[in-house]
Amino acid sequence: MFNKLTYTRRRSALVAGMKARGASGLVLFVGNVDAPAQYRDNCYKYRQDSNWIYFFGIDEPRFAATIDLDNGDETVYADDFTIDDIIWMGPTPSVASQAAEVGVEHTAAYSALDEVVAKAKAQGRSIHFLPASRYYQAMKLASLTGLAPEDTFSKGKTGCPAASLPMVESVIALRLIKEEQEIALIDEACTLGQKMHSIARDNIRLGIKEQEIVGAMEGFAIAKGWGVSFATILTQHGEIFHCHSHDALVEDGRLMVIDAGLESNDHYASDFTRTYPTGGKYTSKQRDIYQIVYECNELAFELSRPGTSYRDVHLAMARKMLEGLKSLELVRGDVDEMLAQGVAGLFMPHGLGHNMGIDVHDMEDLGENLVGYGSGQSRSSQLGLGSLRMARILEPGHVITDEPGIYFIPALIESWKVSGQGKDFINYDKLKTYYDFGGIRLEDDVLITPDGARRLGANRLPIAPDDVEAAMAK
Amino acid sequence: MFNKLTYTRRRSALVAGMKARGASGLVLFVGNVDAPAQYRDNCYKYRQDSNWIYFFGIDEPRFAATIDLDNGDETVYADDFTIDDIIWMGPTPSVASQAAEVGVEHTAAYSALDEVVAKAKAQGRSIHFLPASRYYQAMKLASLTGLAPEDTFSKGKTGCPAASLPMVESVIALRLIKEEQEIALIDEACTLGQKMHSIARDNIRLGIKEQEIVGAMEGFAIAKGWGVSFATILTQHGEIFHCHSHDALVEDGRLMVIDAGLESNDHYASDFTRTYPTGGKYTSKQRDIYQIVYECNELAFELSRPGTSYRDVHLAMARKMLEGLKSLELVRGDVDEMLAQGVAGLFMPHGLGHNMGIDVHDMEDLGENLVGYGSGQSRSSQLGLGSLRMARILEPGHVITDEPGIYFIPALIESWKVSGQGKDFINYDKLKTYYDFGGIRLEDDVLITPDGARRLGANRLPIAPDDVEAAMAK
Repeated sequence: MFNKLTYTRRRSALVAGMKARGASGLVLFVGNVDAPAQYRDNCYKYRQDSNWIYFFGIDEPRFAATIDLDNGDETVYADDFTIDDIIWMGPTPSVASQAAEVGVEHTAAYSALDEVVAKAKAQGRSIHFLPASRYYQAMKLASLTGLAPEDTFSKGKTGCPAASLPMVESVIALRLIKEEQEIALIDEACTLGQKMHSIARDNIRLGIKEQEIVGAMEGFAIAKGWGVSFATILTQHGEIFHCHSHDALVEDGRLMVIDAGLESNDHYASDFTRTYPTGGKYTSKQRDIYQIVYECNELAFELSRPGTSYRDVHLAMARKMLEGLKSLELVRGDVDEMLAQGVAGLFMPHGLGHNMGIDVHDMEDLGENLVGYGSGQSRSSQLGLGSLRMARILEPGHVITDEPGIYFIPALIESWKVSGQGKDFINYDKLKTYYDFGGIRLEDDVLITPDGARRLGANRLPIAPDDVEAAMAK
Repeated sequence: MFNKLTYTRRRSALVAGMKARGASGLVLFVGNVDAPAQYRDNCYKYRQDSNWIYFFGIDEPRFAATIDLDNGDETVYADDFTIDDIIWMGPTPSVASQAAEVGVEHTAAYSALDEVVAKAKAQGRSIHFLPASRYYQAMKLASLTGLAPEDTFSKGKTGCPAASLPMVESVIALRLIKEEQEIALIDEACTLGQKMHSIARDNIRLGIKEQEIVGAMEGFAIAKGWGVSFATILTQHGEIFHCHSHDALVEDGRLMVIDAGLESNDHYASDFTRTYPTGGKYTSKQRDIYQIVYECNELAFELSRPGTSYRDVHLAMARKMLEGLKSLELVRGDVDEMLAQGVAGLFMPHGLGHNMGIDVHDMEDLGENLVGYGSGQSRSSQLGLGSLRMARILEPGHVITDEPGIYFIPALIESWKVSGQGKDFINYDKLKTYYDFGGIRLEDDVLITPDGARRLGANRLPIAPDDVEAAMAK
């Protein structure tokens, strides 16, 4: 929790931002309720809505709030505990005292929100809300606004047409630039996240189930923080990005991609990736590819500084990658042309990085393009560059990830081969010998500073191949 | 996963049960989708819907199914992976092959469900569905049926009026009696759950944060199973039942209630509670209360056998508890009268136990009264007995919990004192000296066998006070 002044300052800045964008009317925030795992009384661990955390802080379910843009009134809606609640859930501070702690004077019953919104609508006032991030929010926003629930969510990367653009833009402008205290909290989450990764590395043993390593990692995340900041990716098939099954046994000679983050008790994320040789030593074939990814990671960090766009950093990184792949004769020809034709996307179909903060992909639900692209920047349609989540000109206070990778995805390679895409550049014969290679990704979390950039977390995870092998030998 | 014949047998039994209850029309199952934690692309660990697990087994998001009661047709609705999906998520078996594995011949696109249901409605056929267990299901059921989303959930203990009673009753009849293979899987989950509890016990150390113990436990649950079967209760305030904050430091002289379960990879639950002296030795005051709860736990197990109602077991346990409290002079007077007036509820406001299976409170979303009360049984309105989730006459194949407890809840005691409830029996002066005591609960998982009952799990957790102290001294 931050102090009261921080929350009031943030809300004032939101109101100012919205007014500067011509908005008037009622601003609506719907916090989360518990998310059922099995059923409504058996829920996942509670996670408050990220925008609620930022503007209202109260880390309890079933809260909502309004801010009246026209008269400045702020109201928190929630229900005090009854005696029955106290028997089952213990005494808890009143809604009024919780609201006061974050600088909100007025409170009302949760159900009063319906009437307040209905009245504002009847008066023809605008109701401003952010895109839904969960199904409960969608249901609640739909019932308040008359929209279909599905229409309260962002539509892919462009955001939610029914949500308030002035609100979305003002929130993004604030949350993109991290405050000093936020940076300290992210640094702390990163230090813990690095410790979690060290535990993972120390637990890699041939013959065990991948799940055992995941348990060791996530147990630490629960012991020291809220838990993991996203579903852990731990796989000997790094070429599969969203791999959440962990039932394989650890086999010798494979590359294990571990992409995982710890969310701190204060709800700030970390997000790191390392790629380990399961047996403790990279083969020379693995090491060649690893070295390219490693150099791409280092280059991206070196280039990250205020005034440079992360799109350009991605492109410089992609050039370095193509040069490396060319030296291994996996591609051939002019690197500039390959870059222009998007050949790098065959090997790295994702972007170099994303914003990180209270969300691991910060504010993704508000619409990726609005979050990650500045005015005048448009999103590429190329594989790879088109998946870049953060393209903006870098500014001090941005927190971003630096996560290049090289993958050999047989289905993708085959589809390019069939369609003839990149045929002048790609050495399909040699690529064929990489179909069982898997993938490599190396990720650090980076703060943009006035002078350049700083990697977050107290102890950078070993990344140079010799250092990784040395750490595994311990 | 079970074999194909198990799933087809279960579905046939469901159809037979529904027809015997006079049903016709279309039976609808909506499986789960991923549950957003931060936003729709950052989700909690996937948990399939429990009824879907039981009847269709396929452990993947975004599946639905229909069974036509009139012609017997079964159809699974889901979408095959596109090339884009394969790039990001890897190759996966086709929907048709997944459906075939559980004995379903027909498949269709997920979106086809809308049309199938609309057509059946237009023909005036009944649409049978179970109460929603999650907000996504509520949204989907609402859009298919025209109900308001909230009306697709169970209303408290009585179930969901809009759901299909023949379907609900038929599902309960099946799932209440565990099959042989299910019992083996529950036994396995219990053995792992006991190991998890041993880890917790070994991690209790004065001065650490409770969260550290939770991390050690839950890490094991993730390493060996799906995770925890419900949000871990680990607290030095055992008198608060739904205590999910773990930020207190472990203090000397307290009682720590640990109520936690592990869900196996096959999605069967376990659920155990033990209460430890934080410093390793119970005080004599703690030991006196502990001994009563321990004897209540033992008695309930001894009485549990086919033909006896669990309501009667609860009442016998409550009598024993009152006798014990009387011997400590916390209550006085005639035990029969106290029992009749519900005095036990002041000390134990919850019931003796619940059904357990794929859900930790098995089928709770279908309506507690329908699940836990047989024909002719009605639910008490007394505190304690009124919270009993399982009252039925016991039958072989029932899996239930045996979890007596004694708690000193200042707010509750004060409210009884003010209202005069139980005033002839309760020694309020002495009770006052227990306001900082906390609570004790002791829980085992029990299978009803043809001859009696068997505690589940390979190694019963130490429960006799000397045994607990000995285990903690190791």
